[in-house]
Amino acid sequence: MANGAGSPRGPYRSGIKRREQIVNAAAKAFTAHGYDGASMRQIAADVGVSPAALLRHFQDKEDLLAAVLEWWARETAALGTGERSGLRGFNDLRALMRYHVEHRGLLELFIRLTGESANEKHPARAFIQQRYGKIVDMLVERLLGVAQAGEIPPIAHDQAASEIRALCATMDGLEIQWLLDPTVDLVGLFDQHLDHTLERWRQGRYVPGTS
Amino acid sequence: MANGAGSPRGPYRSGIKRREQIVNAAAKAFTAHGYDGASMRQIAADVGVSPAALLRHFQDKEDLLAAVLEWWARETAALGTGERSGLRGFNDLRALMRYHVEHRGLLELFIRLTGESANEKHPARAFIQQRYGKIVDMLVERLLGVAQAGEIPPIAHDQAASEIRALCATMDGLEIQWLLDPTVDLVGLFDQHLDHTLERWRQGRYVPGTS
Repeated sequence: MANGAGSPRGPYRSGIKRREQIVNAAAKAFTAHGYDGASMRQIAADVGVSPAALLRHFQDKEDLLAAVLEWWARETAALGTGERSGLRGFNDLRALMRYHVEHRGLLELFIRLTGESANEKHPARAFIQQRYGKIVDMLVERLLGVAQAGEIPPIAHDQAASEIRALCATMDGLEIQWLLDPTVDLVGLFDQHLDHTLERWRQGRYVPGTS
Repeated sequence: MANGAGSPRGPYRSGIKRREQIVNAAAKAFTAHGYDGASMRQIAADVGVSPAALLRHFQDKEDLLAAVLEWWARETAALGTGERSGLRGFNDLRALMRYHVEHRGLLELFIRLTGESANEKHPARAFIQQRYGKIVDMLVERLLGVAQAGEIPPIAHDQAASEIRALCATMDGLEIQWLLDPTVDLVGLFDQHLDHTLERWRQGRYVPGTS
């Protein structure tokens, strides 16, 4: 706090910095031990504050989880959703795989919380569901737009949804394979899978669609 | 234990039954709270035994996790690895998806422990890694065998590995989508994905392979 003396914004700024330290320690704890396994007491100790001081920033563990998810969403906001238009826009997903390889901790946190969110009572479930739904919707719209622009043959909405669900599934599954076995070539496997998928779309060889 | 009187196998049999009850309660606890979040004390309470009695069956939580994983592997041993030969053998994977839908709890446990096993120190990691590796190897061998039998055009080993890794990834990813959103048609999405994949293999349109 000493460095805040003389500057009216000092104490406020140091409060923000402390908050960031706590969110960072919580993200590490959730990654290592999961939400249920992480302890508020240990997170406080990792930051070097008392449990009471931690509670002045976050009233409970669920509040801290919300802050970790917000932070995670900010860190990864621009990924895979770049502004390149047309079929080329899907190439942003390659950058996403490269980002994962360079930020393994963020991916590990996300995959862990996703696995935990299979449980209907998990406090991260609504966030993970919404995020997944938004990404699927965005990619379906993008694929439909590519067809409307005439870059690929016409595609029905349910076909587009099936294609995008399978593509997202492949990304998640390959990420898991890489987390379990670092010798798996996540970037290479996805690159060739996407090459193949884009070529198939150009030729209009879509899966039939389910609904 | 009273029912064991007069039968020499009674006490032994009731010990086995108690052990099964504990493994079952532990599987539920790991599914709901994860490995780190599950408590030996609570598992003992769920079964109605003292913590000391629990420790006579399982010396610690890791020992109990090993028993849960063994039980899980036994329950799911025959799935997806049926004896149908040829390309038709891959249809066993459709039955696997139907099994998941009918046994959501088992899938939830597996996906949760898989997410946790992204952490290099997790005690389930070696088991999950080995199981994943065995399934990939088995399916790669099956695909190579199908090509050797002339049912599909020749395929190189690295191509076969890429195809199988992508197929397994799609299964895992669709399972996660269904766990997060029960309105996702896991069986239908996978059926059409597999139809499409088998047809593509018949035509020899493989992904190029990475190594």
